[in-house]
Amino acid sequence: MERLKNLPKLENLRIVMVRSRNPLNIGAAARAMSNFGAFHLRVVTPYEKAFRETVSAVGAAPLLAKAEELDSVADATRDCSLVIGTTAIGHRELQHDLYSLDEAAKKIRKRLPSGRVAILFGSEKTGLSNHDLSHCHWLLRVPTREEHRSMNLAQAVAVVVYEISRGGTIATAKNKLSSAAADMESVDRIAEALLEALHASGYIHSRSAAIAEEKLRRMLRRFELSSADAEVLLGMLRKILWKLESSRG
Amino acid sequence: MERLKNLPKLENLRIVMVRSRNPLNIGAAARAMSNFGAFHLRVVTPYEKAFRETVSAVGAAPLLAKAEELDSVADATRDCSLVIGTTAIGHRELQHDLYSLDEAAKKIRKRLPSGRVAILFGSEKTGLSNHDLSHCHWLLRVPTREEHRSMNLAQAVAVVVYEISRGGTIATAKNKLSSAAADMESVDRIAEALLEALHASGYIHSRSAAIAEEKLRRMLRRFELSSADAEVLLGMLRKILWKLESSRG
Repeated sequence: MERLKNLPKLENLRIVMVRSRNPLNIGAAARAMSNFGAFHLRVVTPYEKAFRETVSAVGAAPLLAKAEELDSVADATRDCSLVIGTTAIGHRELQHDLYSLDEAAKKIRKRLPSGRVAILFGSEKTGLSNHDLSHCHWLLRVPTREEHRSMNLAQAVAVVVYEISRGGTIATAKNKLSSAAADMESVDRIAEALLEALHASGYIHSRSAAIAEEKLRRMLRRFELSSADAEVLLGMLRKILWKLESSRG
Repeated sequence: MERLKNLPKLENLRIVMVRSRNPLNIGAAARAMSNFGAFHLRVVTPYEKAFRETVSAVGAAPLLAKAEELDSVADATRDCSLVIGTTAIGHRELQHDLYSLDEAAKKIRKRLPSGRVAILFGSEKTGLSNHDLSHCHWLLRVPTREEHRSMNLAQAVAVVVYEISRGGTIATAKNKLSSAAADMESVDRIAEALLEALHASGYIHSRSAAIAEEKLRRMLRRFELSSADAEVLLGMLRKILWKLESSRG
């Protein structure tokens, strides 16, 4: 079994799924959590007990194996210093502050280094009850469209955990594979070769040559060629040019 | 049937699911798209044709009903000016730049007001092929953990569309100076003409033609041609080609 590496960043996060009906959703949520480095799942009285065997937890079997089963929201949040409810509804309860996910994630990230944070997700059908919400400090909402607010449960977990993990040290995939830019000498060699080909083919007449040359140079600069592409392009043009000129005589 | 309100913001976005195996994933992706106001789904040769009837598309039946079915990635991206591939792998191909989702989303939001943007998602099993990738300008990766990179397909769509929709207000096309980007039909016409010229000049031998074609397509996409430049380039190539072919006999 793969050992779970607990990234310090989300080590204090607890995802709490309350009365989930479909074990596939628990498994899919576990997969998303594992993708984003959140390893602590708590499950409060799921309708179907077989969630640990679900096929949807691709790659997240270790996480599901150590998921905690609890009998109440109170038990599942006891050791947390901040408890947040998720809701699809705009303002069911005026008793709670409601934050959109990006604001909420900032507050959560701020808290995580110093205390455990629980995020509660309700059942597919009815969400969190008023009793569940009474355990929450405030609520968060994923900013879905008014006309279609209700997300798939596991997708909601995925988006929430993604947002909390963002900007972090989890996996910086920033390596833009920028190959070196071509220098202007190479670009001008391309311009020359292209110009010759355009003369040989009759595209440019000598009267308009000067303007064409300028236009061409500007156009080639707009392409922002890499040096590798410039080399390929020059090779192509020289071959074409050679053919044009050898067949001329 | 609920009428889809097209938020101007994502009206130009096309989510393209290529060879999806599981119709449940297509339905779940449709639901997430609808949640975040992205209504245009394109499906390229799914393994199972029954995706329009899937139960997972809760609330997204109108979106699935008008999803477009296409026979190839070329057909699915023809009218787009920016084509992005998604990958779980860090650096499969050195031919493409790779951006993490948040950087990618910024670039996408910048382009959406002026042109159509396609985001390609590959099959659950194998992702996008090298041939699929040859249609892409660059790649994006959702920053998952090194040890568990591979996301559920529909969750990946959810997270990507969430990130693109974030921040609310639409980026208004600022630099009116930059001319509109060329659509992929024009770029592929250039690729064809250049390919013919390279055959005629002996640069490409039939043995290596398929690889050359893919390389060429990728290179031309890297240039990020404007439609004006694309037109000029095509005119040039056709003239050169005409000359090459007329002098051959």
